[in-house]
Amino acid sequence: MQETNLYTVTVPPMMKSLKALSGILDKLDKHAKGKQLDWHPKGMQESALLQSRLISDQFPFVRQIQVSCDNAKNGISRLAGVKAPVYKDNEKNIAELKARIDKTVKFLKTIKPKDVVGKENAMISLPYWKGKHMSSFDYATEYLIPNFYFHVTTAYSILRKNGVAIGKSDYIGGLPLK
Amino acid sequence: MQETNLYTVTVPPMMKSLKALSGILDKLDKHAKGKQLDWHPKGMQESALLQSRLISDQFPFVRQIQVSCDNAKNGISRLAGVKAPVYKDNEKNIAELKARIDKTVKFLKTIKPKDVVGKENAMISLPYWKGKHMSSFDYATEYLIPNFYFHVTTAYSILRKNGVAIGKSDYIGGLPLK
Repeated sequence: MQETNLYTVTVPPMMKSLKALSGILDKLDKHAKGKQLDWHPKGMQESALLQSRLISDQFPFVRQIQVSCDNAKNGISRLAGVKAPVYKDNEKNIAELKARIDKTVKFLKTIKPKDVVGKENAMISLPYWKGKHMSSFDYATEYLIPNFYFHVTTAYSILRKNGVAIGKSDYIGGLPLK
Repeated sequence: MQETNLYTVTVPPMMKSLKALSGILDKLDKHAKGKQLDWHPKGMQESALLQSRLISDQFPFVRQIQVSCDNAKNGISRLAGVKAPVYKDNEKNIAELKARIDKTVKFLKTIKPKDVVGKENAMISLPYWKGKHMSSFDYATEYLIPNFYFHVTTAYSILRKNGVAIGKSDYIGGLPLK
């Protein structure tokens, strides 16, 4: 029997999506290596793709991955009422981005259903909300979930625009068909 | 008291997101009119933006909006076990896309919590799953929600790439801060 609660609609889907994102980084790695020519400076393709964006006033790919992880670790920490781990935001290559995703998934695994379930009405307040607050339920459904997928999809879109051979199934990360 | 259930995590957030998408279309309309020059064929900007995409092997903006609506109406219909309305996919301008969003929101309003709540373990099967199936809960959390936000974000990204003045708050559509 499956149950819809504040844990099951947030933590497991985010862990799955982060793992899918790690798989997308593997495809990015393959793509970058394939495009890297002999006379290019070392790692030129990888670096260029990590710094790519759709338009100049948008954060680049590397930041989209960092923020996807941050949404997950900070958002779930708020729901669970625990302190989130702090990362240095200094990833410079695909391997380091994959490591950031791995540690985020590992952190999410430390959050147990009992830490989150039933806390819909706990109030959350962020510094930039200037003293205002919202319920954990509103935060999860109206901000955390849509914002998390926003950054994962934006990361995906930046790679699609660059011709990396990824598709919807890489984003979804497989379905539990029986 | 707010409650996390299969209705509250799907129908209201999708209605909100579709309304935000309609607001983004208003900004697109303003942008297209501002870029339309006297010697352009009538509606050139609007048409060009509706047919814009990030890369040639991707559906254009107009299709991203259609699919966002379809994810909502078809997905929620599957969760509720009702027949989804069928649309003609013939929208040719911003006004028609806004009308599609409106009728999708109106349809979602006909789905009541009791139609969806508690149906986590009902099995869903789609033609292209070749006889396989998954639970409504898995469908909602692993496919419907991430896929819905994928298409809304992709629509947003196509406009961002074209320099339309939209930002994250247009995508989120306001927060219930108190």
